[in-house]
Amino acid sequence: MLSNIRIVLINTFHPGNVGAIARAMKNMGLTNLYLVDPNDYPSEEATSRAAGAVDLLDNATIVPTLKEAIADCSLVIGTSARHRTFQLPIMNARECAETVIPEAKQHNVAIVFGREKTGLLNDEIAQCHRQVYIDANDEYPVLNISQAVQIVAYEIWMANQHKDFAEQETPDYPHRKDMDLFYEHLEETLYGINFVVRNHPGKVLEKLHRFFNRSRPEKQELGILRGVLAAVQREAGLTEANNHPEKKAKDALKDNNQKN
Amino acid sequence: MLSNIRIVLINTFHPGNVGAIARAMKNMGLTNLYLVDPNDYPSEEATSRAAGAVDLLDNATIVPTLKEAIADCSLVIGTSARHRTFQLPIMNARECAETVIPEAKQHNVAIVFGREKTGLLNDEIAQCHRQVYIDANDEYPVLNISQAVQIVAYEIWMANQHKDFAEQETPDYPHRKDMDLFYEHLEETLYGINFVVRNHPGKVLEKLHRFFNRSRPEKQELGILRGVLAAVQREAGLTEANNHPEKKAKDALKDNNQKN
Repeated sequence: MLSNIRIVLINTFHPGNVGAIARAMKNMGLTNLYLVDPNDYPSEEATSRAAGAVDLLDNATIVPTLKEAIADCSLVIGTSARHRTFQLPIMNARECAETVIPEAKQHNVAIVFGREKTGLLNDEIAQCHRQVYIDANDEYPVLNISQAVQIVAYEIWMANQHKDFAEQETPDYPHRKDMDLFYEHLEETLYGINFVVRNHPGKVLEKLHRFFNRSRPEKQELGILRGVLAAVQREAGLTEANNHPEKKAKDALKDNNQKN
Repeated sequence: MLSNIRIVLINTFHPGNVGAIARAMKNMGLTNLYLVDPNDYPSEEATSRAAGAVDLLDNATIVPTLKEAIADCSLVIGTSARHRTFQLPIMNARECAETVIPEAKQHNVAIVFGREKTGLLNDEIAQCHRQVYIDANDEYPVLNISQAVQIVAYEIWMANQHKDFAEQETPDYPHRKDMDLFYEHLEETLYGINFVVRNHPGKVLEKLHRFFNRSRPEKQELGILRGVLAAVQREAGLTEANNHPEKKAKDALKDNNQKN
């Protein structure tokens, strides 16, 4: 189950932190490390700080963008300071662990950590369903990134060891990449019906992203939403003009049905 | 209350760890750092890793021995691996926090971390009342020392924030240095009555240390025990021969009474 939980690090600056994080993860039974465009890596400093967890570095997946790191994940949680909210549901590390453990039985879950100095960018948070923060001293709340990973991983270990969760089924959620296809389809449609002006989109699309990330449609619900979009496009006479999005929607629905 | 909780580091080897620990402590509201005979300290590496917690390094107390670091503490907790037991009561980091928070309202509490490679020595564990371990992956349970401090401090922060402890009074416990005086008195007495042979003491004294550390006599109880020792010495005719331990015991009792 713990192998379905991945730690995603974006643009780490100090390779020593990557090593310390590998060790912190292995201490808590996590094995699945994704590095998005890391600085100065691989490095001796990382290997040295990893101590007995060099295997995690060897097996780490290095990708150029966050999108690729989370494409097959059903739940993506971004780390942030406590008071910095992006209108996503926010939880502390203990609540995060209690959320993650039951979901990771069936799905891939990503926990995303931003850069050492600047954290996650807005367009990265926009790819998350939830936010997690670490309870800390308000006067000095910013942890070193390896310490932050340690606490999140520790809470996951504790929740997994001492779990008395009801054996609940989690709904069948779409992968992150299916959400991306839905957003593309949504945007095409909204441009097509002139609800959003392509050169002056304003905040509407961003707000819709937040809404759908927060609401986490299930796989079947996403299929229905795409069906609605396809119908709108057909009725508005947009089908031919825009690279056959109706056909794409039908393919997506078929694809979903095959998976189910 | 958190200022009554001190983190004691013994013979740290890497100064960077001291800096990382200062930051981890301040993140969790702890301010009281003791360094026992640190290697290569002060150091730029420590200052750099401390980030916004350099004030903790500036205010750290540096002492040559563990004994001095814990002399005025009523509760001393040593960190160890989970399965390494010294016949002391053992608890995990969460239970440790729940123990420490109510005691720290009235008393000084020390949490002692051993060397990076070798942990605490037996004679250091012998100065502790309790042991704490961190729940971790059995296949790779050894955390970097700064990560271990981070988790212990985090659990203390969490317990303090979310506490719903009954407002219980903790008993009035003697300071660690009073326990040391008691042990000296006990040993003198046991040698005097030939219960223990000075040149071949065997394991008896060690086992008595463990017993009294585990049982944690209250201040008044310790006074009574010393009274018993003084009476034994008097009856055995040992008073003159051994630097007047009876007078020392009376002084200790008087001292205790004044404090109460």
